Amino acid sequence: MFATMGAFGLAPTAEAARREPAFQAPRRSDFTLKGRSAAKVVIVGGGIAGLAAAYELGKAGYDCTVLEARERTGGRNFTVRGGDSTTDTYGNRQTARFGGGQYMNAGPARIPQWMVTLDYCRELGVPIEVFTNVNANAYIFNEQSGMKAPVRHRTAKADVYGYVAELLAKATDTGALDRRITTEDQERLLEFLKDFGDIGDTLAYTGSSRRGYRIDPAAAGTPGEELGFVPTASEVFASGVGRYFSFEFEYDQAMLMFQPVGGMDRIPAALTRAIGERRIRTGAAVSRIDGTDHGVTVTYTRSGRTRTIEADYCIAALPPNILAKTSHNLGPAVQTALEACRPSSAGKIGLEYRSRWWETDHRIYGGITETDMDLAHVWYPSYGFHGERGVVIGYYNYGSQADSYAALTPREREARAVAQGVKIHGEKYRSELASSFSHHWRQTPYVEAAWHSMAGGPDAPVFAPLNQAAGRVYFAGDYLSHTDAWQHGAFTSARKAVTALHTRVLA
Amino acid sequence: MFATMGAFGLAPTAEAARREPAFQAPRRSDFTLKGRSAAKVVIVGGGIAGLAAAYELGKAGYDCTVLEARERTGGRNFTVRGGDSTTDTYGNRQTARFGGGQYMNAGPARIPQWMVTLDYCRELGVPIEVFTNVNANAYIFNEQSGMKAPVRHRTAKADVYGYVAELLAKATDTGALDRRITTEDQERLLEFLKDFGDIGDTLAYTGSSRRGYRIDPAAAGTPGEELGFVPTASEVFASGVGRYFSFEFEYDQAMLMFQPVGGMDRIPAALTRAIGERRIRTGAAVSRIDGTDHGVTVTYTRSGRTRTIEADYCIAALPPNILAKTSHNLGPAVQTALEACRPSSAGKIGLEYRSRWWETDHRIYGGITETDMDLAHVWYPSYGFHGERGVVIGYYNYGSQADSYAALTPREREARAVAQGVKIHGEKYRSELASSFSHHWRQTPYVEAAWHSMAGGPDAPVFAPLNQAAGRVYFAGDYLSHTDAWQHGAFTSARKAVTALHTRVLA
Repeated sequence: MFATMGAFGLAPTAEAARREPAFQAPRRSDFTLKGRSAAKVVIVGGGIAGLAAAYELGKAGYDCTVLEARERTGGRNFTVRGGDSTTDTYGNRQTARFGGGQYMNAGPARIPQWMVTLDYCRELGVPIEVFTNVNANAYIFNEQSGMKAPVRHRTAKADVYGYVAELLAKATDTGALDRRITTEDQERLLEFLKDFGDIGDTLAYTGSSRRGYRIDPAAAGTPGEELGFVPTASEVFASGVGRYFSFEFEYDQAMLMFQPVGGMDRIPAALTRAIGERRIRTGAAVSRIDGTDHGVTVTYTRSGRTRTIEADYCIAALPPNILAKTSHNLGPAVQTALEACRPSSAGKIGLEYRSRWWETDHRIYGGITETDMDLAHVWYPSYGFHGERGVVIGYYNYGSQADSYAALTPREREARAVAQGVKIHGEKYRSELASSFSHHWRQTPYVEAAWHSMAGGPDAPVFAPLNQAAGRVYFAGDYLSHTDAWQHGAFTSARKAVTALHTRVLA
Repeated sequence: MFATMGAFGLAPTAEAARREPAFQAPRRSDFTLKGRSAAKVVIVGGGIAGLAAAYELGKAGYDCTVLEARERTGGRNFTVRGGDSTTDTYGNRQTARFGGGQYMNAGPARIPQWMVTLDYCRELGVPIEVFTNVNANAYIFNEQSGMKAPVRHRTAKADVYGYVAELLAKATDTGALDRRITTEDQERLLEFLKDFGDIGDTLAYTGSSRRGYRIDPAAAGTPGEELGFVPTASEVFASGVGRYFSFEFEYDQAMLMFQPVGGMDRIPAALTRAIGERRIRTGAAVSRIDGTDHGVTVTYTRSGRTRTIEADYCIAALPPNILAKTSHNLGPAVQTALEACRPSSAGKIGLEYRSRWWETDHRIYGGITETDMDLAHVWYPSYGFHGERGVVIGYYNYGSQADSYAALTPREREARAVAQGVKIHGEKYRSELASSFSHHWRQTPYVEAAWHSMAGGPDAPVFAPLNQAAGRVYFAGDYLSHTDAWQHGAFTSARKAVTALHTRVLA
């Protein structure tokens, strides 16, 4: 049997079949505290910052305990699967009914190549795959700017770049740049512009195969037919489609981006395993943090009973807006700083469909549709291509748009999101819907923020009390970083806190 | 155990663990010949066109036999794994020594969203994943243009777009566009350019965080430090980095792109299974095709013995340059057409490394580095992220560059490719090398072409005899399509041929 298959390239040799191992990451550690200690540390908050602190301190010998108010670790790193339930601060209870293998990352969902989050995936053995942050085939639909129909990113880009190239090429050609750059540079610029805008030697944009095809090129006799109806420059600029292009130039959003295979919560799950589950108490809501001369006392409630835990040090890795509502004796400057961290809103809805009509009908395999509607962004799934079902993120919005959806019941959120999405995708957006699940971070108990607005940045004077120890209490979280709302901020903030703590212990 | 894991979000419920199914594609067929026939068809060539023809005819009841000269099906769809051997027409014999799970796609390696190749993946149950065709973190190195060091795509793009935006914004601001577009459009254009080039209200490009960072933003106290040494506009234009940007605008190369999980040859493997292995004869080199009044006689050699096969029809799905060297009685117009298909050269080398230093040291997770060196392109692998090893495509070049590498021994090719790559990546490009395997299509027996140059396109009059039947012989291949060198061309050409054949049979 194998020999026959080998002849068809199915399995060149029996040896080859044997040689395909399951993924196993190198166990190299990128960050290691030098020297060891057995000091006792209580960590308040089992989100990424808290888990990372416990993980790194644990590697250096510390006796850590993590107190997490919710029933799961990960904090805002929350992957919703079928059977998962939430109740928001407005009392809306939802249970996800997603089918097998389907999920939505309600919090962080993408990882740029440069962030240490990827290093933790490597170190912890969490397999990764591409997150489809940009897709030429996805749509742009600026309803408020008067667009009558969605246009694909590739088409919008061809038109904008085409007219930009034409305008600059003609300005160059008529001498408008003569006093700015040399003739030789102008020639090089023109060469670039002809290619960049596909404007040819006439220097006029009249459409391009880059816009896409009404009939795709195929066999002989079918050269394909380009999309018609090239809009004028004025129409293109008025549509505002160009405002989305710089997204993919940004240092934190440029492709390639990545995600853990199977859900973002593979990261806190791996951290939890590495820390040791016995060191983590979920359902433990902290009510009080008291620094003492020689340690810290943390009071919490678990299963209806109030308990205290004593430790040599504490790392406060809970959201600053939650800590601001928690009793403590850390002083008024700390309290002022905590209250200066202004919580922001964001929400997502996962729309599970019975078929992957966006792939079969729209030829959209992942990526993001951009709108000026209250949906803000529509995400197509980065996993499960060609499968039976899929979860589309029907909105990912912030601020007042998120708040206005949060004020609705989950059923109303779904109806509103679907009604908007139908305008872009047609009736299957409604008729193929199987279930939905919405999540809003400002309304999530024990979190109550998607991220935080830090006036002047995390190094502004008002936040100084949080960037150093308050007695034996250290602070960590993405809000105390220059990459807030990214796990990278939580990881690097945790590294900073444990380094400071460890340096002091060893001193 | 499960209950405890559930508390940490590792496995919310036992049910959830059960709900993660292995990938299984829908079995929907996109292309179906209407009506059935039991006619006998011999298909010469077991590449994608030949396999697709046999597969589609088989679905309609035909009795097909595929004759393939090489020892494996797939034609140029060739995935090289450890243990695979080749001998080129110059006599170079190589055996790949790649480790477990490592491979290179020597032929086609990427699939755009719109091509029917993806439909066949869906129909045949071949899982797909993203092919990393563009990566902001990959390099550009134009040594011949005088660049002293590689620059990342993101940096080059920020600089080029920054200066383009500045030049056009200032031309606009000084009235150079007044006679071309309205004041309102100029205002919209300026808004776009400020964002597109990150030039702010001064309309001057002075660098941007989009270029990247020397020190990445991290915790409080580490705002990051942007890459310094912003080149002048003149330096940027002279470097020629901008010539690579339009690649990702093209209809056939724009992200998102895809590949089968595990190697491109999962496609011919699945086709081979679907056709039935008993219908395929490998190692069967055709020496003669004779049309008769009522059928076709094909003569071939297998295991040293010459045989003939009679059929009602034939589909000639072998490369036209090979058919041109095969005896036939299809007439001088056919022969002239075949000889007008000019074979092109292309080659690739797979460099297997003991570590994925491009990920750990360069933060490059997939994508393509562009050069004006004879390597042309360097591809980082789109699979196995964070694994122990990886195969970098050290060159993917065409024409005379490919021919000059083909003229070397495999060892010399490796040495030359590595010496060039060291200039971009440093010494690990040499020191971490574990093995290599190079493949050149012009020098591959029974293929002898990477693709074909068709003067005037496949619908030019000279090729007309190939776009219709020659008696009872039909022709198929990507060369007879408007997407030559793509599997889409082979698939659609096969569909066209079997449709014509079937229509005639049913008539």
